[in-house]
Amino acid sequence: MDQLDISVIPGDGIGKEIVPATLQVLDTLADLHGGVKFRYQTHPWSCEYYLEHGRMMSEDGIEQLKQTNAIFLGAVGNPQIVPDHISLWGLLIKIRRECEQVINIRPAKFIEGIKSPLAEPNHFDFIVVRENSEGEYSESGGRIHSGKDEIAVQNAIFTRKATERTIRYAFKLAQTRKGRVTSATKSNGIVHSMPFWDGVFNELSAEFPGIETESNHIDALCAFLVSKAHHFDVIVASNLFGDILTDLGAAIMGSIGIAPAANINLTGQYPSMFEPVHGSAPDIVGRGIANPIGQLWTGKMMLDHLGLNELGTLLLRAIEDSIAEGVKTRDIGGSSNTQEVITHINSKILSY
Amino acid sequence: MDQLDISVIPGDGIGKEIVPATLQVLDTLADLHGGVKFRYQTHPWSCEYYLEHGRMMSEDGIEQLKQTNAIFLGAVGNPQIVPDHISLWGLLIKIRRECEQVINIRPAKFIEGIKSPLAEPNHFDFIVVRENSEGEYSESGGRIHSGKDEIAVQNAIFTRKATERTIRYAFKLAQTRKGRVTSATKSNGIVHSMPFWDGVFNELSAEFPGIETESNHIDALCAFLVSKAHHFDVIVASNLFGDILTDLGAAIMGSIGIAPAANINLTGQYPSMFEPVHGSAPDIVGRGIANPIGQLWTGKMMLDHLGLNELGTLLLRAIEDSIAEGVKTRDIGGSSNTQEVITHINSKILSY
Ligand SMILES: CC(C)[C@H](C(=O)O)[C@@H](O)C(=O)O
Ligand SMILES: CC(C)[C@H](C(=O)O)[C@@H](O)C(=O)O
Repeated sequence: MDQLDISVIPGDGIGKEIVPATLQVLDTLADLHGGVKFRYQTHPWSCEYYLEHGRMMSEDGIEQLKQTNAIFLGAVGNPQIVPDHISLWGLLIKIRRECEQVINIRPAKFIEGIKSPLAEPNHFDFIVVRENSEGEYSESGGRIHSGKDEIAVQNAIFTRKATERTIRYAFKLAQTRKGRVTSATKSNGIVHSMPFWDGVFNELSAEFPGIETESNHIDALCAFLVSKAHHFDVIVASNLFGDILTDLGAAIMGSIGIAPAANINLTGQYPSMFEPVHGSAPDIVGRGIANPIGQLWTGKMMLDHLGLNELGTLLLRAIEDSIAEGVKTRDIGGSSNTQEVITHINSKILSY
Repeated sequence: MDQLDISVIPGDGIGKEIVPATLQVLDTLADLHGGVKFRYQTHPWSCEYYLEHGRMMSEDGIEQLKQTNAIFLGAVGNPQIVPDHISLWGLLIKIRRECEQVINIRPAKFIEGIKSPLAEPNHFDFIVVRENSEGEYSESGGRIHSGKDEIAVQNAIFTRKATERTIRYAFKLAQTRKGRVTSATKSNGIVHSMPFWDGVFNELSAEFPGIETESNHIDALCAFLVSKAHHFDVIVASNLFGDILTDLGAAIMGSIGIAPAANINLTGQYPSMFEPVHGSAPDIVGRGIANPIGQLWTGKMMLDHLGLNELGTLLLRAIEDSIAEGVKTRDIGGSSNTQEVITHINSKILSY
């Protein structure tokens, strides 16, 4: 029997509700499989943990995570008690960087039974491959002078290495899909980093002659996700642009509550991390109504990554069937609560 | 009789078609008014001009512009013949900076008769106030090393002065509207410039106690423009974020072809510049089918700015009536060509 160690970080807000709920489903799947068992190491790292300990995770936290096969995270951040740049850089972004999860992948797909805000969603189905280690998210920079003369400088840093591996990943992914890669740029306004990005994109295009390529400025690309989302297959983007495009992707799916994400360690040396796109949603905490689909779909990405693709496929099928049958939370037009959705999905899985 | 000198820069692509067309309407309005006359100084500055002269505008171009009352621009850029960072920094961005057009304003409004891609557009009506002189659009930065080790560094520079005047402008604008200002931030990921921006926003909020304020991260805000656009009144944003939000605003209006923009010189020392949000659209050049509405609405913003609000109001009325009557170009579901729209709008104006 394969034992897989999963680090579990429910985090803040609704993360604490949906993560434990989702583990019930992962266990059902493992039982069904027979040959695999998940052993969870659950960590209380969160904004509340910070208030008590003055840090977002224990001192040897990263070491503990590194000894496991994958990290399953709920949501981090509660700006009412801890400023975001502390909570996120002390946990989410810290793990992304120290576990070298250099690429972030987020699918956006029209799901039957979830009302898209778009009048004609046309069954869009694309994946955003996002650079996850550098770029616009950089601690390089600072301030000078004060009062009326104050200036803040923010450096965005793009290395050849990270840019290339991200774009290469996108091309390889497109080879397994419809074969089109769209690069998000803004080289008309951002004149150092973006022309560099475009240069790498153009070079790599030549290595993948079978792939259709295009570059869109981020402003136009955001507009296109509204006007012709079905056009896209794989979109490759910098850290910031990927962040924006994936929230927009979640929005056109009809709810940010359903969108999954994976932070991938490419070498396998350290664990990858799986987290939904949504945040901790302090406004609905404690009511038991949070949508568990984003977290579940994130679980599917984790199963696939761990080589348990059959289980991943089963889980996505149960998610889709459950939505089609109308067992869904309020944010996507249903009336079920979190646990009702979980119970239904569990029983769907057992019924296949 | 008031003589107003307008610098006209049709620019590239469809700019060369819609700008002259739009001037017909401006002249009709001036004739109607009786007390005002526009004198146009038309400049051929464009990518083709660059190919011939090695520069995007004549050497004394900025001086010429500065002697006029306003600048009416079509579209700049044709990446097939001149790289964007040359054409735009040599003309559009150069004028914005040298004429100290430090703020960019772009309304986004649901228009009856134009099909929004949103299933429920709910009559949204908001304005984006964008910082237009610095921020992420900066020539500061560069590259080091080459080949595998190459690194590109891009500096975003935020001064207290520019940040404050932009946010203050947004607050004052909100006082004349619904009284809500939403600030676009990303202080959870971008840890120097955006916390600085947030700080200035919070300070100024205190000066405008009657205004309702909120801060949204740019990723969430883009999603909100899809899920609840009607919530917004005035959105204030950095140069890059404003760029993204306004294209998205144009997209939910149903066509980038109808969205106007103004680049405002706050002191009145130099002329302000008026340009539609859309680009030069090389793909439809020469067919006479470009949508003139963005350029016309831009004209309305120019008239308002020049103190000719009656004429501006008349023009917007003619635009809206003409769309409601179905005289519109293909991109917004009609079958008229550019000149037919212009002729109809002209006759509407004469009929009031
Ligand atoms: C062409 C480009 C540099 C420009 C910008 O980003 O400012 C355009 O997108 C705009 O919004 O006016
Ligand atoms: C919370 C924030 C720092 C994070 C990001 O921007 O990376 C989030 O928006 C995401 O996309 O995972």
